[in-house]
Amino acid sequence: MSTVEKQLDDLKETIASEVPPDISVTEVKYEGPEVVVYTRDPRKFAEDGDLVRNLASKLRKRITIRPDPDVLSAPEKAREEIMAVIPEDAGVTDLDFHEDTGEVVIEAQKPGMVIGRHGSTLREITQESGWTPEVVRTPPIESSTVSNVRDFLKTERDDRRRILEKVGRQIHREEMADDEYVRITTLGCCREVGRASFVLSTPETRILIDCGDKPGSEDEVPYLQVQEALGAGANTIDAVVLTHAHLDHSALIPLLFKYGYDGPIYCTEPTRDLMGLLTLDYLDVASKEGRTPPYESEMVREAIKHCIPLEYGDVTDIAPDVKLTFHNAGHILGSAVSHFHIGDGLYNVAFSGDIHYEDTRLFNGAVNDFPRVETLVMESTYGGRNDYQTDREDSEERLIEVINETFDRGGKVVIPAFAVGRSQELMLVLEEAMREDKIPTVPIHLDGMIWEATAIHTTYPEYLRDDLRDRIFHEDENPFLADQFNHIDGGEEERMDVAEGDECIVLSTSGMVTGGPIMSWLEHAGPDPDNRLVFVGYQAQGTMGRRIQSGWDEIPIGGEGGRTQRLTLNMDVETVDGFSGHADRAGLMNFVKTMNPRPEKVLCVHGDERSVQDLSSGLYHDHNIRTFAPKNLETFRFL
Amino acid sequence: MSTVEKQLDDLKETIASEVPPDISVTEVKYEGPEVVVYTRDPRKFAEDGDLVRNLASKLRKRITIRPDPDVLSAPEKAREEIMAVIPEDAGVTDLDFHEDTGEVVIEAQKPGMVIGRHGSTLREITQESGWTPEVVRTPPIESSTVSNVRDFLKTERDDRRRILEKVGRQIHREEMADDEYVRITTLGCCREVGRASFVLSTPETRILIDCGDKPGSEDEVPYLQVQEALGAGANTIDAVVLTHAHLDHSALIPLLFKYGYDGPIYCTEPTRDLMGLLTLDYLDVASKEGRTPPYESEMVREAIKHCIPLEYGDVTDIAPDVKLTFHNAGHILGSAVSHFHIGDGLYNVAFSGDIHYEDTRLFNGAVNDFPRVETLVMESTYGGRNDYQTDREDSEERLIEVINETFDRGGKVVIPAFAVGRSQELMLVLEEAMREDKIPTVPIHLDGMIWEATAIHTTYPEYLRDDLRDRIFHEDENPFLADQFNHIDGGEEERMDVAEGDECIVLSTSGMVTGGPIMSWLEHAGPDPDNRLVFVGYQAQGTMGRRIQSGWDEIPIGGEGGRTQRLTLNMDVETVDGFSGHADRAGLMNFVKTMNPRPEKVLCVHGDERSVQDLSSGLYHDHNIRTFAPKNLETFRFL
Repeated sequence: MSTVEKQLDDLKETIASEVPPDISVTEVKYEGPEVVVYTRDPRKFAEDGDLVRNLASKLRKRITIRPDPDVLSAPEKAREEIMAVIPEDAGVTDLDFHEDTGEVVIEAQKPGMVIGRHGSTLREITQESGWTPEVVRTPPIESSTVSNVRDFLKTERDDRRRILEKVGRQIHREEMADDEYVRITTLGCCREVGRASFVLSTPETRILIDCGDKPGSEDEVPYLQVQEALGAGANTIDAVVLTHAHLDHSALIPLLFKYGYDGPIYCTEPTRDLMGLLTLDYLDVASKEGRTPPYESEMVREAIKHCIPLEYGDVTDIAPDVKLTFHNAGHILGSAVSHFHIGDGLYNVAFSGDIHYEDTRLFNGAVNDFPRVETLVMESTYGGRNDYQTDREDSEERLIEVINETFDRGGKVVIPAFAVGRSQELMLVLEEAMREDKIPTVPIHLDGMIWEATAIHTTYPEYLRDDLRDRIFHEDENPFLADQFNHIDGGEEERMDVAEGDECIVLSTSGMVTGGPIMSWLEHAGPDPDNRLVFVGYQAQGTMGRRIQSGWDEIPIGGEGGRTQRLTLNMDVETVDGFSGHADRAGLMNFVKTMNPRPEKVLCVHGDERSVQDLSSGLYHDHNIRTFAPKNLETFRFL
Repeated sequence: MSTVEKQLDDLKETIASEVPPDISVTEVKYEGPEVVVYTRDPRKFAEDGDLVRNLASKLRKRITIRPDPDVLSAPEKAREEIMAVIPEDAGVTDLDFHEDTGEVVIEAQKPGMVIGRHGSTLREITQESGWTPEVVRTPPIESSTVSNVRDFLKTERDDRRRILEKVGRQIHREEMADDEYVRITTLGCCREVGRASFVLSTPETRILIDCGDKPGSEDEVPYLQVQEALGAGANTIDAVVLTHAHLDHSALIPLLFKYGYDGPIYCTEPTRDLMGLLTLDYLDVASKEGRTPPYESEMVREAIKHCIPLEYGDVTDIAPDVKLTFHNAGHILGSAVSHFHIGDGLYNVAFSGDIHYEDTRLFNGAVNDFPRVETLVMESTYGGRNDYQTDREDSEERLIEVINETFDRGGKVVIPAFAVGRSQELMLVLEEAMREDKIPTVPIHLDGMIWEATAIHTTYPEYLRDDLRDRIFHEDENPFLADQFNHIDGGEEERMDVAEGDECIVLSTSGMVTGGPIMSWLEHAGPDPDNRLVFVGYQAQGTMGRRIQSGWDEIPIGGEGGRTQRLTLNMDVETVDGFSGHADRAGLMNFVKTMNPRPEKVLCVHGDERSVQDLSSGLYHDHNIRTFAPKNLETFRFL
């Protein structure tokens, strides 16, 4: 018998001895980080809310109860029983029964009403039907991404169970090493912005954190080929953790599967969906620009199939010696500060990912409160000595001013923006300004994937700022549903109509003018000096956005037949700071200053040379923390 | 055709076009780092001493000329022709003809006379016989190690040629990477003494430097299992470089072959032989102490077969992008400061290995003069702020004093010493002191491998200090042949006789009292308070030597039937500093101070926590060099 089988047998015995004798335990399985307990008495488990909680705390594992398939009522019957329990206002849109596991996935417009107070409705569902319910939200704005991901996972259910079982066995394998160390190897985003990637390693376990590309330098990818990363084979990596879906963190995650990786990707649910959206677009842009994409769309599907979604605050075993907890990072939807607890009280490392320290319209500020942290790996995008951003209120006022000025002279406003994050923040600003008559109510055209990304935001309101979440829950107050938002879905023709039409605002990807529909908007709106191009986000070195910002007024643009033409930009170029999803210098310093507990060491990464150096020396001087500004391909040992 | 075949063809063409038309080139092959040119006209090559030199400098490769087997005179005839050329005084003891390669190995007591001025006699040999001569020295003291190694390499000739050809193709493979970096990963000997091991890596090439054990902590071995080392497979290492033969640098070299390594080991010739001697003894000691040796003696033979001996000053291609040059390190026989020139002028790293900065009786001081060095990896054994050793002259005086005192009261002197290095240094001191009547001429008993190690020293006098070399060349002045030296080869009985006999001096291994015959000497001489135990070398933390030095007077000793008994040490314990093979604090500082050029960065390794920190801050303060005191398992990137 393998040691895992032995462990499972022991576990089953312990569980059987912990539950009352009238409750049967027919099987115990690992499924990803969870322990799944099959029983012929699901109703009895459901009667006693504390039973599972006590079991979980006793075993220090996450426990899921499932009915033994033998005792399930037939789906048709169960459907009636379940619908009788759920209040009608919950707006159930789909029930999906899985007879192999006894799970029923309930899609509803108001998942909270399916769950009930402290899960009371869920328990009632089990008591009535015997089935184990799982609830997902019906997207308030139809999202093809969300429905594609859900449909795909449904068809791949068998394969996914195989993956989860394999991952579960990996996680719960016996610890072998008698040595102790904790190391971080930098594979990218050191003294640069882009290609975020790290390896966190112990004698037992090797975890890859992020795997992004570098906007504007597509041939500079993380150093995956070195021995410390995948050089020894893709399956020497035990787990992948994705902090958020922006391409400089996620673009090359699917590539791992081309290289033969077959393990889990831990991320939040919105990060999974956004990664799907953004990486597919990444492939699309690459082939449009005549580059060979590094992987096929099939690999994006593999990546999605291997995602294990975690919620903020869930402490999850991801290896025999590593527990992972995600916390809100305030940067984009689903973005996570990732906290690793290593060994049993041995060491703790937090990766900030990208963060915003203060509350924004979209998100609460980043969490910096942990049980323990010895080392922090910290983003430094705006870590430079003078990288202070304007106050958000002042920025909003300035943006309103710029828009009004432009409208006064009859021009249009074009804003390049990341589909994910910046766009939704601006939508909220513009919607309010129009509602409060600070700017005229004109059409706001959303081009590229902004519309779709917004739909994903509305699917996961739990990840948004409290008050915004509440507004979304009330359909008539959902700001993203305001009439003036127009989804550009009519292609070049619609754009030309808009460009020739009345005053309006255009939000279009890509955010750094490295391709996408923004190129068309420059072409259509660029020659008219009454129009305005307004930058609201970070423009990385090497991107066209940075060049235009620094004064270029002639830019190459793909003409007909693939030939490059030069386009003269006559439109005004304006930059309005303060909408960044990144903390500014003050925010970064404050994140560490108010961090509880204060880390002993900070690695400043994800910023250009000057930013990481400045932040590193700033933190050292103010707090006497040992700080480092690593290069790529270095390895730090912490224990 | 593979790219290597193509390269060889091109090379052959170039060579053919460079040599006069009347000289044929029948084949060109790689053999390790050398290019071997086969010709039907070896005599014509031999006539013109400049021809090969010009060819080598034109091709920037090491060139060896060999006769096409077709044109060789028969060995019996060649033997006469060769003996007619070599002066009788040369003392030829063996001629060994290899018809497959046209080489004749000439073993002689005076190799210099076989070589002749600027190689004139060698050329004459080729002119007369057509054969390519190679000369080795007949050991002046019979050495079973040297003869075993030579005999073994003779029987393994075919396999060795296969290895050399494979290595040659590896070295001359085409460069593939378009990236540039130079990294060092620490696998051992950081903030500790013992288990020296590093990986030097570029995008093309991964070189393992040293692979030692840790005396007194046999279960702490270099981190070979991590991905950066052999974790990705033993053959992801392109080459192994061994700085010297002490076990804390060499013990686990044979283990690499057990793990499947099949590449070259670059070291000096004496390092190869000493490694053979010491690792076989290491296996012996391990099994005597009831530990399972990590590898079998077969693996030592594999290691020896894979050695490619280099001489000090030879600039040798060991990878497409790395040239290695050894320089005298002054530490033990064959010890080398290893200089790596990476890329074509890209970067230079020197590994000091263990060094002695000043001249000793045995060796010239360490070389610190290089064409270029950006980073130095520096030993720090005596790097502590107060680690100043007594002047060698004072130390010698003190040792003489201690010996005379002991003799005056009728005692014996027992000196634990490393077989290699310390013992020979002391032999020279004692021989002179007796010759100059500073101490009475009494027997000096050499126990353990000291005798054998001494024989190896006399086989390679080129590696000794100039004036010592000259004395060894004159048999009647060879200090190692003095009558008072007695090889303990009669086992326990002889030891007991010596212990019960008259005044004498005993030099015995192991140098740190971690096993070996010194344990017997403690048993026999330890109880008598008139005797004296004199430490003359570094005693590492955790060793019995260090414990005795710090006052332990009861030590466990293996009794009969394997039971451990306690032995009370009544003998005086004395430490006489200044005979170390290691530079002291001043020596280490001076090595860097007078280094030409001064390195930009220094990694202080191979010393306990305090020593590396002190040396690191000392070098920083005095010379404003960026210094580091790495931990094990870190990776530094230099470019």
